[in-house]
This record gives sequence, C-alpha cells and structure tokens, in this order.
Amino acid sequence: MLSFACDYNEGAHPKVLAHLTERNLVSLPGYGADPDTEAAMAKIRRECGRDDLQIQFLTGGTQTNLIAISSMLRSYEGVVAAETGHVSVHEAGAIEFSGHKVIALPGHDGKLPAETLARYMERFLGDETNEHMARPGMVYISHPTELGTLYSKAELTALSAVCRKYGLPLYIDGARLAYGVMSPASDVTLQDIVELSDLFYIGGTKVGALCGEALVFTKGNMPPHFLSIIKQQGALLAKMRVVSQQFDALFTDGLYWEIGRQTVALAMRMKKMFVDHGYALYMDSPTNQQFFILTGEQLERLQKDVVFSVWEHMDDGRAAVRFCTSWATTDADLDALEKLL
Amino acid sequence: MLSFACDYNEGAHPKVLAHLTERNLVSLPGYGADPDTEAAMAKIRRECGRDDLQIQFLTGGTQTNLIAISSMLRSYEGVVAAETGHVSVHEAGAIEFSGHKVIALPGHDGKLPAETLARYMERFLGDETNEHMARPGMVYISHPTELGTLYSKAELTALSAVCRKYGLPLYIDGARLAYGVMSPASDVTLQDIVELSDLFYIGGTKVGALCGEALVFTKGNMPPHFLSIIKQQGALLAKMRVVSQQFDALFTDGLYWEIGRQTVALAMRMKKMFVDHGYALYMDSPTNQQFFILTGEQLERLQKDVVFSVWEHMDDGRAAVRFCTSWATTDADLDALEKLL
Amino acid sequence: MLSFACDYNEGAHPKVLAHLTERNLVSLPGYGADPDTEAAMAKIRRECGRDDLQIQFLTGGTQTNLIAISSMLRSYEGVVAAETGHVSVHEAGAIEFSGHKVIALPGHDGKLPAETLARYMERFLGDETNEHMARPGMVYISHPTELGTLYSKAELTALSAVCRKYGLPLYIDGARLAYGVMSPASDVTLQDIVELSDLFYIGGTKVGALCGEALVFTKGNMPPHFLSIIKQQGALLAKMRVVSQQFDALFTDGLYWEIGRQTVALAMRMKKMFVDHGYALYMDSPTNQQFFILTGEQLERLQKDVVFSVWEHMDDGRAAVRFCTSWATTDADLDALEKLL
Amino acid sequence: MLSFACDYNEGAHPKVLAHLTERNLVSLPGYGADPDTEAAMAKIRRECGRDDLQIQFLTGGTQTNLIAISSMLRSYEGVVAAETGHVSVHEAGAIEFSGHKVIALPGHDGKLPAETLARYMERFLGDETNEHMARPGMVYISHPTELGTLYSKAELTALSAVCRKYGLPLYIDGARLAYGVMSPASDVTLQDIVELSDLFYIGGTKVGALCGEALVFTKGNMPPHFLSIIKQQGALLAKMRVVSQQFDALFTDGLYWEIGRQTVALAMRMKKMFVDHGYALYMDSPTNQQFFILTGEQLERLQKDVVFSVWEHMDDGRAAVRFCTSWATTDADLDALEKLL
Repeated sequence: MLSFACDYNEGAHPKVLAHLTERNLVSLPGYGADPDTEAAMAKIRRECGRDDLQIQFLTGGTQTNLIAISSMLRSYEGVVAAETGHVSVHEAGAIEFSGHKVIALPGHDGKLPAETLARYMERFLGDETNEHMARPGMVYISHPTELGTLYSKAELTALSAVCRKYGLPLYIDGARLAYGVMSPASDVTLQDIVELSDLFYIGGTKVGALCGEALVFTKGNMPPHFLSIIKQQGALLAKMRVVSQQFDALFTDGLYWEIGRQTVALAMRMKKMFVDHGYALYMDSPTNQQFFILTGEQLERLQKDVVFSVWEHMDDGRAAVRFCTSWATTDADLDALEKLL
Repeated sequence: MLSFACDYNEGAHPKVLAHLTERNLVSLPGYGADPDTEAAMAKIRRECGRDDLQIQFLTGGTQTNLIAISSMLRSYEGVVAAETGHVSVHEAGAIEFSGHKVIALPGHDGKLPAETLARYMERFLGDETNEHMARPGMVYISHPTELGTLYSKAELTALSAVCRKYGLPLYIDGARLAYGVMSPASDVTLQDIVELSDLFYIGGTKVGALCGEALVFTKGNMPPHFLSIIKQQGALLAKMRVVSQQFDALFTDGLYWEIGRQTVALAMRMKKMFVDHGYALYMDSPTNQQFFILTGEQLERLQKDVVFSVWEHMDDGRAAVRFCTSWATTDADLDALEKLL
Repeated sequence: MLSFACDYNEGAHPKVLAHLTERNLVSLPGYGADPDTEAAMAKIRRECGRDDLQIQFLTGGTQTNLIAISSMLRSYEGVVAAETGHVSVHEAGAIEFSGHKVIALPGHDGKLPAETLARYMERFLGDETNEHMARPGMVYISHPTELGTLYSKAELTALSAVCRKYGLPLYIDGARLAYGVMSPASDVTLQDIVELSDLFYIGGTKVGALCGEALVFTKGNMPPHFLSIIKQQGALLAKMRVVSQQFDALFTDGLYWEIGRQTVALAMRMKKMFVDHGYALYMDSPTNQQFFILTGEQLERLQKDVVFSVWEHMDDGRAAVRFCTSWATTDADLDALEKLL
Repeated sequence: MLSFACDYNEGAHPKVLAHLTERNLVSLPGYGADPDTEAAMAKIRRECGRDDLQIQFLTGGTQTNLIAISSMLRSYEGVVAAETGHVSVHEAGAIEFSGHKVIALPGHDGKLPAETLARYMERFLGDETNEHMARPGMVYISHPTELGTLYSKAELTALSAVCRKYGLPLYIDGARLAYGVMSPASDVTLQDIVELSDLFYIGGTKVGALCGEALVFTKGNMPPHFLSIIKQQGALLAKMRVVSQQFDALFTDGLYWEIGRQTVALAMRMKKMFVDHGYALYMDSPTNQQFFILTGEQLERLQKDVVFSVWEHMDDGRAAVRFCTSWATTDADLDALEKLL
C-alpha cells in the first residue's frame, strides 16, 4: 500500500535517529539545562542570524500553539486567525480550553490578508461596546498554511505592519516551515520570518523528527518563568535532550533544509503528474501538501492502492483530496503512484 | 433628555421595590436556603405549570449564560450559537474564558434555523477527524433574540427536535422573555419554552428587577452540587433574598407579564410612529427593541435630545440604531419623541 | 427565635434602602458609567484621603476575592494565605478554579505573621527546584479575620514590609472592614489599610448593604481593561447603580462607621455577658463575631431559642460556637439572649 | 563526574532504542490508531492479566497526572493527596492550573494513611457548610512515593477500601512503578495495583524510555472522547508510535521488570555502602531513590566528584540528600562512589 497520507507517518530521518543513538548514554541534567540543548539552540540562532533569540523546545504542534498563545495573551484577549487556521479548526478547541477566543476572520487560500485584519481592527476599535467583546491580543498565521499555500514576502510584510500598528504580536505556526522556505515559489526566508514575526515555531514532527518543535521568541519577549508555564501545562519533558538532540541533527549540515528541498521537489513532480493526467487542482500549492479534485470513481479506485486524505466531500459527488510527500517519500513511490493515475 | 437607550436604565419596578422594602427586616438564612426563595420558586413553578422544575437565582445575564453553559458541557465540548448570539459577541469571551468554544453558525434575523443546525451536525459527525475538533455539546438561542426577533412555535419545535436527535441540550436565553411571550406576534408560551428547552432563564434585570435572573432546569438535569459550582464562580449571593424577593414580586398578580405586555405595546406604537414618519426599519421586531435606519442628518439631530444606541454604521453613511422601551417608558415619552421625528 | 447566625441575615440598613428608593426612577447608563457610581467612588476616595484610588464595585465577597486575585496573578503564581483564610477554606475552591494555588501557611489566631511569610519566601527562593513549584505571587489576608481577630498596626506594617521586599502585592479582604476599623481594640485606620495594602475591598454585604463590595486599587495598579475581566467572569452588573447607590448611602454622614461602631459595641456587651455567666471564650475577638465554648447541654438548650453557628465540634463533646451581631441587632435582642444564658 | 542525580539523565535503554530503530521506516497512521500502539497495549494488558483495560500513552509524568486528574474530576472537586505528593509540590501548580484544589493531608513517610483519609472524609461530610468547600473527588498516591517508600499490600487495600466507601476513584502515580514492584521489600504486585486502583500509570521516562507513560483505566472508566481531551491539552503526539514502540520494547521479555530488579539491587548495595560507612539514613527507602544525611563537610567533599540532589538543608547545618540509581547505573559506578565515602 502506497501512503501519501501525511508527513508524520514514519519515524525519524535516519540522521536524526543516528544522533539520538550516538548521544544516548551521555548523562545530562533534565528539563533543558543541559549542553546538548544549549548546542541545538546555538545552531538555530546561527541559522536565524540572531544570537539573542530565546528558544524553547516542545513536543508537538498543538502543544506549541497552545503554550505560545496562552502565555502571550491576557485573560480577556483572543487570538485572530483565518477561519481555516489550525487553531480555529483542528486542535479540539485547545485555545478556547485555555480560556481564549479564536477570533476567526475570513481568509483567502488559507491566508489572512493584511487588509482583512486592518478592517477588523478598525471596526473593533470603533465599536463603543468593545469592552464587552473578546479583545484581539495576537495574530496567528501558519506558513505554509493548512492548504499548502505561502505568504509572499510582500504579504507577510504588510500583515506584520498591521500587527505592529495595533500592537498585536504576530505568531507564525511553522509546523512545515522547511517546506515553505525551500519552496521554489517562496521569497520568504527564515530571516524574514525572524524579522517579521514576534514569535514562531520551527516544526520538527512533520520534518523528520520523532517529535519536537522549536518555539522562538524574536523580541526578547519570552514570558518570565516560562519553564514554570510549560511545566504547569504538563509540557516540560524531563529528558529535554530527546527533542534538542533531534534539532541539533536537523540543523547540522543543512539537513532541515535538505529535507524541505527534496520533499517539495517530489511534491512538484506529483502535482505535475496529476495535472498531466488531467486531474484538477483544488488548490495550487507550492509545498508538500497537494490538493486535487477526484471524481467518485477516481476516489474509489485510488483508495484501493493508496492512502491519502479526503479533505472535503463536494456537493457534486466529487471529492477534494490531499496527498503529502515527506522526507521518506521516494521517486519510486511516485513512479508507482503514476501508474495508478 | 429622553432615553430609549436600554431596558435597564432605571432601578426596579415600584412593586418590586415595595416588596423588597416590606421584607427588609425579616431575618432569613443566607445562600438561598430561606422561605422567601422557596416562595419565589414555587410561584415560578406554578406559572410554568410544572412543580418539578429546578430553579437557581443568579444576578445577571452573562453570569447566567456562563454558569448554565459551562456547567452542562464537558471540557471538550463547545456550545452552538448563531453568529449574532449574545454569547458569541457581547460577553467579552466569557464562554471561551470558561474553556469552551462558541461554535458560531450563520443565523437568520438573529435566529438559528433548525436546518442550519442539522446540516452542521451531519457534517461534523461525518468528518473522520472530528476528534480533533471542538465537539458540539449544547445549543444556545435567545428568545427574543439580540435583534428583537422571535422564534415561531414551529421554528422552536423544529430546532428542539434536531437538538434531541443529536442529544444536544437546548438552552434558551430569556433575558427579555417577558417581551417575547407577551408580543402580539408570538405563538410561543412560557409552557412551550419549558417543554421545548432543557434549560432556560427568565430574565429579571431587563424586566423591572434591580438585578437577577431565574435559571430553570426542565428535565431534572441540574448538575449535582450546583451550589458549589455557583459559589466557585463567585456567583452565589449571601443575601439570595435580594433576587428571590424580586422574583416573588414579579410573579405576583402577573406583574412580569403586565410589564411585558405594556412595554411591547409602547414599542409597537413607537415602530408605527417611525414608519409613519417615513423611517425605514433595519429589522422588523415584534418586541421591545426597535431597529431603524437613520440618515446621518437624522442621527445627528435626534442625538441632541434622545439617548439611543447606534447599532451599526453603514457604508453609505446611514446608521442602524436601536430604541428600547422598558417598564419605565410612558406614552408621554413617546409623545415627546414623536415631536422630534 | 433570636438570631445571631450571621451579619447578612437581614436586608439593607434603612438608610441604604431609602437612598436606593430615592434614586430609583432616575435614568442612568449601565455598567458603571453613570454619575451615581462616580459619586459613590468620590465619597470613598475622600474617606480614604486619596483622590487617585481606582475603585470597582462588585456584588459579593467570593466574587471580589476571585477577581482581585486572578486578575493580579500570572498563570504560574499562587496566592499566599493563612490556613484559616476564607480563600483557603470557604470559597468552594474558587481560587483554584481560576487556575491558581492557594499557598496556605500556618496562621496564628487567623492571622498570617510577617515572620511566617518571610521564612516561607526565603525557603522558596533558596530552593533550586522552585521553577517546578507554584510561585508565590500575592498575599491575601482578611481584616478582621475569619476568627474576628485584628492585625495591629505593627503587625500589618511588618507584613506589608515583607510583601514589598519580595514584590508581592498585599491584598486585604475587608468583608467586615467596618468592624475592624471601629473596634475599640484597633489601632489600624482606613488610611493605614490604603497605605499598607496594594489592593483591598470595603465590604458592603456584611455591613448593611443588600449586596456589594468596593474593590480598591491603591497604587494605580488596576489591571488594564478591568471591565472586560469582570464582564468575562459574569460579574459585571448591568445596573451598577444598585451597588454604587448603596455605597453612596453607606459613605454619607459616616453611616458605614456608625454601623461598625454600634455593631461592635453590641458584640462587646455580648462577650461580657457570656463571660460574666461563666462561659469560656474560644477566641477573644474584638469585633462583631464572638466565639464561645459551650457544653453539649448548653448547646442543646440554647439552640431551642437562638440561631447561631456551630464552628467546631470538639473531641470532648463541647462545641465552639459563633454569635454575630449586625446593624440589625438591638439591645433588646441581647437582653433576651442574656435571659437564656 | 559520577552521577546519581536522577533516573532520567540518560537516553533510552539500548533495547528500547533498538526497537525504535527497527520500526523506524514503517509507515503508520498517526495519533495512536496504529498496529504498533495496539501491540504495546496488548502486551501491557497481558502483563496486568486483564484484557479489558483501557490504555492511553502520554509523554511525561506531570502531563499524565494533569490529564488523569482533571479528566476525572468535576469542576468543584479537588484531589486528595499527601502533603509530600508530587502533585502537591512539584508540578508548578499544574492541578490548580486545571482548576482543581489539591487537598493536601499530612502523610507518613510520603504515604497517605487510610485512617487519615477516613477521618478527613468524616469531617468533610459532617460539616454543614461543605457546599462552600472544595469537594474531595479523587485520591492521588504515588507508589513508590516521592521519598522512595512503598505501600504494603495491607496499607493499599485499606486505602482502597476507604476510597470505595466514599466513592472516590483511587489514582496511583507509577512514575517509578518498576522499582516498587521489583523491590524485595514489596508485597504489592502489578495485579494488585490493577485491582486496588481505579486508574494508574506505568512510568516509562524514569524506567528506561526516552519519554512516555502508560495511563491505565481499570474499571472501564476512561472518560468519553478521551482523545479530544488529550488533544485539547496539547498532549496528543502525532507520532504516537514513539511512545508505544518504547512500551512494546519495555514489555517484551520482561525488560521493564528486569530494569526494576537490577536498579533496585544497585540501590540496596548503595544503601548498605553508606550505612557501613557510618552515614545516617534520612529515609529507609526500599527502592531506587536513597536518602542520606550528610554533614556540611561530607556534602562539600562529595559534591566535588558526584552529582546528586540536596533534598533539604537542615537547621543544624547538615543536609538530607538523594542518590538515585537507574538502568544506566553500573557496579563500577558504585565501586567508584564507595571510594569517596
């Protein structure tokens, strides 16, 4: 059975696992106060071109979003996000569970346009009853988005400017950051992310790690006693080394970017294959998540041999589907897929 | 200055205040374990035609919504409401603060159509990833709605049926219940509310009380240790008598309904006045909140002598405005208003 | 049946009710943006001798404690209190419900000694693992305490100094403040409370109001958007006038202090009566709560004609009991009680 | 530098890492719906002798305690624990952060005696004001305790009986369960734990895993939609395989118990070494945590060459210290330590 179900269906990239194994017997203090964690942070800082970044390793994406958002907001504040944002839809109400409203605004191709945010802020501030409303306290975007799309540098700059105008920290969910930065269609670099956001995270789980995300504060704005905040939410690993050693490997010799480059290249080949075979695109994605429209017959036929996600059952009987490539995908997998198209 | 700003701008209806005064020196136990509270509950039960109703007095509407909803939901559940619902917009994120998502669906004239709810539930249950989403656990509606509109008995019956089909308790916010039940346009009685809902509240603050709402559980479904739940949220009055004595007065000799009848009658006169003077309706409301469209010139002129709410600044420079009548409104007030139209 | 059960068993002091009645028909904006609320605040500021105090009216004591504490603490902080503190024991876990630990330290006669706090802080700060512990973020005391006792000015000054040394806001629960300030045994004035605390509240419910407390921030330290915080917790009254008009009456012509003086004088007479009749004191209280020890026989006999609280069943069959005086207690009540002793 | 600092200072037991590596490239669905997770659960069920156990893998101890406790309690309930319990002291207020009071009772050698619990319950239920108090809803114990001690089967049976009498689920924190079950001093088996508790967890992080705990519900009492509960708290791993494959390895060929046996044997040798050299025991622990009393001079000297924890600075200048053994400790380590004593 071929699988393009997601980018987290295998274990770790072999180089990541090798590094974990190599360091396995070294005795290290717990909770992140160890030299391996320091080393991984140093590599990330170097990559970002900023040696003052504050970094915290966490285990998964929803956990990172939950902690990043809830630790930055005051009790009466909500986080603004596109309606399709991961925090709006697919985190089982984690943000609300933490006490904060997700203020979902209409997006465009999974993105939150700067003008949409600006218009919302003007209306909110102009509303005399706004003390009776959840107050916007932060902006959440994902890059790449849940639909595989990317902000252009111009779009991101505009959004960041609106955020600064209104004093809203901009938080970028980089669960699949490697696939964004390394997409041929992208003009946004890691350094742009650092500069334009107030905090963001570099995803590991979906880019070759067993688990782990690196949450980065770019403005010296890590909340005080952040370790206690994380501990309190059950998110502090005793063996922090498990995540930090993986990030060390990912940021050694450009492995993170190489995974990104190769995975996107395979996705582009896949997109071309589908288009060449006459399939319609549901979304024209430049990253590792590809969205196609299948007829009922095509859906049924492909599901016999391939694992992938049904994104949406359309009213006309067709279905929007998602195929992902990952670090573990090979050209041979695509060859096999092509035979089934 | 004439005021039609809201229905809570005066103190209490004189009969309510008289009853408070009359009972003022009687020594009573605290926290609701007193005969006056029992007497008020008995009157409400009699009015509802059901002697098994469980009742709790609280001080305000947002407090009542917060406690009703958060005490009925499990941690991973959200409450479904119309986008214009009070809990969706105007409670400063109170529901989210309690940990629960408000699942806002598009409404119609402030109402949540039964078909909209049914379609949402089908999609939710059909989505294989729904364990990753906030789960619908309850339905919230207001009657009258925030736009002054009313569910017909047919609409309410249909909505209640969808709720039961999916095991969703139906909660009715009756902040202005008197104005709904006593509207000449309404075919929904208090007994219908009791029968079709799982819990609802009878609003006092906006119907002549100093403060106070009566939360009614209709199915023996009051959560256990409800007093502790209320105490824990800082919502348990030491002198519960203050609210219960007011409800006793409101439900003596039909005062609650008489306030409703008279206030709506004045609102209907007001609507006719505006229409007769050529003003457009923003919403055709059969209750005590009336919504008109004013030109910029009209707005400016009326604001000199009258207090009312600007509901929405429209793109063409006009404004939707709200005028409320209350138990304290008089025909003389309307006469004075008419001279200004 | 004589009642000394509590100080909130009657309605409002007649002058309070008279003022509510007098202002009843005046039309005022909601939520505290009205001249009556401003007037009441002005009177409290004048009484405190500080025109820069920030004040918010709330409806009850637990609500006030909950909002004061949860709005001042960061998520990982707890509030330090004596083991017998109201927030430690009798608020149904309200503080924990808001996410914060009550760090209960052993007290003395209901009070938290400055040295106990200092020793705790030294240990906490000296513990290398304290990032894994709830962090002390505030100190709660009550004055009078739950046992009727009072801090001396020296004790309060010492405690306040420890708080400042460690950057801990000092919060004083003044549910019965009038009885503390007006006790002949007290050398602590309202001005001392203002000066030595960071926030405190002036209790109304237990001092002649129907409901209502005045929360006072003494250092310009009211959290931003405090109205939204209150709204979000369901604690914002639409008719704020109800509380503020009562405080206006309480702070007109010294009524609040006169209630305090008279109620404590009656309590002192009561204490003397019990002592003269050979009863033992459980606690030597200089305020309106009096604690005695009764034998089983005395308990049974008195309960036939008098309502009071059993504080604790002692192992030897005796019981510690509490008798309260209030603004509604009369010398005739005490005469009647004396006949039963 | 020798290290006896904790039992989580190395990576994974080599057999655990080998199994992770062996299964690394297999493509598996996420979030626990995979055959490897099913296989690991089957092995745990077999070991427990009960094929109906409900199991959930989580990443760490505080996370597991937080989710186990908060998902079982109603909002107004607290969890009863010994004052020295991990949830009482060292989880940064995680339980309170989730809204629940830790009702800390005085313990004995880290244990909660059945009689202490019984007496507390009698007092609570006999207190007429208990609706104003946090309600006991669950009991937490750890086995081994934070002080390395163990419940005897008689003690555990008695405690379990009190829990059942009062309808309190008994939750056992088994962060170091292997060291309890395999202690020569223990008469409590895994099957006893299953039978006497309502839920418990089998610790992995401190017994040779990179991370991971197995939470076991013994009475068909896993809360509904538990996956959503976990997701909502950011605790659901996308690659659940990471934890389940480790547990598969730990429960293959008795590895978990062998780690337990060997680690405790080394601890017993260590204890004897200290005693033979004239050191005093702070606690006579039969498990892998050993507690000694050092003079200031001894402390200073040993800290030069050995890493261990200072548990408590005693008033007389001496210090209570903790030395841990782990799966990675060797006899050679102890030989080296002995030379320093």
